[in-house]
Amino acid sequence: MTGGRRSVEEHVEHVAALLAPLRTRPTVKVPLARALNRVLAEPIHAPIDLPAFRNSQMDGYAVDAAAVATVPVTLPVRGVLAAGAGMSVHETGTARKIMTGAPIPEGADAVVPVEDTTDNSSTDGQATVTVHRSVAAGTYVRERGSDIAAGAELLPAGQLIAPRHIAALAAVGMTEVPVRALPRVAVISTGSELVFGGTDLGPGKIFNSNGPALAASALANGAEVVSVDHSEDDAEEFALKIAHATDVAEVVITSGGVSKGDFEVVKDVLGPRGGEFVSVAMQPGGPQGTAVVDGIPILAFPGNPVSALISFEVFTRPLLRAAAGLPAIEPSMLPLTADLTSVAGKRQFFRARRDGDGVTVVSGPGSHLVAGMSGADALLDVAADTTSLRAGDLVKVLPL
Amino acid sequence: MTGGRRSVEEHVEHVAALLAPLRTRPTVKVPLARALNRVLAEPIHAPIDLPAFRNSQMDGYAVDAAAVATVPVTLPVRGVLAAGAGMSVHETGTARKIMTGAPIPEGADAVVPVEDTTDNSSTDGQATVTVHRSVAAGTYVRERGSDIAAGAELLPAGQLIAPRHIAALAAVGMTEVPVRALPRVAVISTGSELVFGGTDLGPGKIFNSNGPALAASALANGAEVVSVDHSEDDAEEFALKIAHATDVAEVVITSGGVSKGDFEVVKDVLGPRGGEFVSVAMQPGGPQGTAVVDGIPILAFPGNPVSALISFEVFTRPLLRAAAGLPAIEPSMLPLTADLTSVAGKRQFFRARRDGDGVTVVSGPGSHLVAGMSGADALLDVAADTTSLRAGDLVKVLPL
Repeated sequence: MTGGRRSVEEHVEHVAALLAPLRTRPTVKVPLARALNRVLAEPIHAPIDLPAFRNSQMDGYAVDAAAVATVPVTLPVRGVLAAGAGMSVHETGTARKIMTGAPIPEGADAVVPVEDTTDNSSTDGQATVTVHRSVAAGTYVRERGSDIAAGAELLPAGQLIAPRHIAALAAVGMTEVPVRALPRVAVISTGSELVFGGTDLGPGKIFNSNGPALAASALANGAEVVSVDHSEDDAEEFALKIAHATDVAEVVITSGGVSKGDFEVVKDVLGPRGGEFVSVAMQPGGPQGTAVVDGIPILAFPGNPVSALISFEVFTRPLLRAAAGLPAIEPSMLPLTADLTSVAGKRQFFRARRDGDGVTVVSGPGSHLVAGMSGADALLDVAADTTSLRAGDLVKVLPL
Repeated sequence: MTGGRRSVEEHVEHVAALLAPLRTRPTVKVPLARALNRVLAEPIHAPIDLPAFRNSQMDGYAVDAAAVATVPVTLPVRGVLAAGAGMSVHETGTARKIMTGAPIPEGADAVVPVEDTTDNSSTDGQATVTVHRSVAAGTYVRERGSDIAAGAELLPAGQLIAPRHIAALAAVGMTEVPVRALPRVAVISTGSELVFGGTDLGPGKIFNSNGPALAASALANGAEVVSVDHSEDDAEEFALKIAHATDVAEVVITSGGVSKGDFEVVKDVLGPRGGEFVSVAMQPGGPQGTAVVDGIPILAFPGNPVSALISFEVFTRPLLRAAAGLPAIEPSMLPLTADLTSVAGKRQFFRARRDGDGVTVVSGPGSHLVAGMSGADALLDVAADTTSLRAGDLVKVLPL
């Protein structure tokens, strides 16, 4: 289909259907040190008890509680247990000096903190300790499995891995973590007027911003960017770059070449291959294309840089984040700081900034105002049938 | 100083003074494709006008507005200007077909959209166009510098770089971006009871979780982790590892060996070198040490994994983020979902979860409950002099 018209909602649904395969993610194993900010592909069950053995919560003396039921009482000391010590057997009526984390001797059932004792070795040379306070059985003993028992679910599938999850995974001895594979995205900017930074800007040329910006957008939303390429307005070159991109990526994003000019390379190449090029009732970003080449979905965005970025935000970001397992970016309702008029019949995405007073439109409506857009931190989303809003009206705001 | 007591606020100030040098960041240049999520070290002024030349906002015909003041009018067409075309000169009373983004011919002052014209070449073979609608001078013309003028500030120093900033930087042709150097952090876990995942967990041993977790915490808060090391409870080994860490890092974080046991390697080595080992009135995380070795600050956290993570959150995270130029994580006030008692005289950091109803304590108070902490998403921060709170009371909550 070429030349059809669609609402934003219809095109969102259309793109969601095309990108549905991305939601089924393969599982990949990554080293624990690379697991931060990845998403668990499956629930993790603790392979061991935590703690793995009964151990002391305090620096003090391991005793049997019955021996210190009446205090003060002086007990012979049978050595010292450091953290990392092996298992030992308790002799009723004695004490062992014990450090935090050291294994409780078998048969001991409590720890007297060092603060509640007197070590007699320094005063009378005897290896004895005087206990000044009774403790109940279990006091300052960390029971085996009391944090988590072997086999219990430590972390659920879908968990976005933060440092505290790294701590838990490390604590049960995991060195590799099964995570969702990142969605693989390729970007192809098009346009013979584009040149790359670092080269001379000849007459009539502009620097390519869509390539770097769309790649950064994909990266910032959980994708792996496997290719960032550029094509002149040349059908053969573009077809080759598409062939490469569909080889390596799960979704390809192009910019430019989808409008009504005489030289629309994306439309010219993909149209005959079943691509759909439609006019979506939105500004900026109206001309949109989609295609499937060798089973890989292609999203063809318009070439104006603001249009390309807003196309990404509206049509791609939610789907990429969902595929990656990242939380959705929720819109909010904020008051307008000034009156606003909006073109009838097209959903408008104004560049805006939020502050304590509400949301303010920044930058003009031109879809080439890429510097202007850099000063925005949100899009103000105005429905197609709304033509005027007043200061103080609540409006839908999408954080950028 | 060893054995002193401090409030949390005092220790926060003490650590802030030690880490003050980190706030002065060197500037490093990174390729544009690596600039996402970095922080601009200096303001960026546009090196060129954007747009760099007057160009068409529409596909249509470049005209002089005077020639289309009365419509319909038929004008000779002097060729086609694609985007990327060079500069040309307009002949009064003629038209040039022009594509979006193509340079406006010198002397033309407006663009008639293609929708408001009839191309006669297909009907009568004449290279003429009939214009059906008048346009004012300036219509659909993007003036040079109308987005930003050369020399104007494009982005301010301190800007956290998002995709839209990549777009703006690319659009003005920048290939390298001056950003704040990442703070370089080294982590040393200590403890002879620790073993690494992938090895057998012998009797009395536990898996090292502090190394990976503190490294991930630093990484998640804008640091570059330049070394993650481990030391047995051996003074010589620890001294060597500290020497290495202070060689490569700007701040060193250690875990373990700071308490009152018989084997406190961090305290034993750093105490005689001017280290301060104090008791901070907080739970968990009371035993804290600091030192400066070869000019590099060392933060010595306790070894219980929950204590180590909470020490990072309270004493290090805000300073690292500020050094990196990342936004602060702001605490919020939320209602408690259940009554709560808190130990007098010590500021308590409970592990908690937030939901629509407020904040709920999860996991017990034990500082070894690392699996329990992984289920939290916030710390509930209860002042030292507060001993009881009721369901519904507003409490201070630090997002993890």
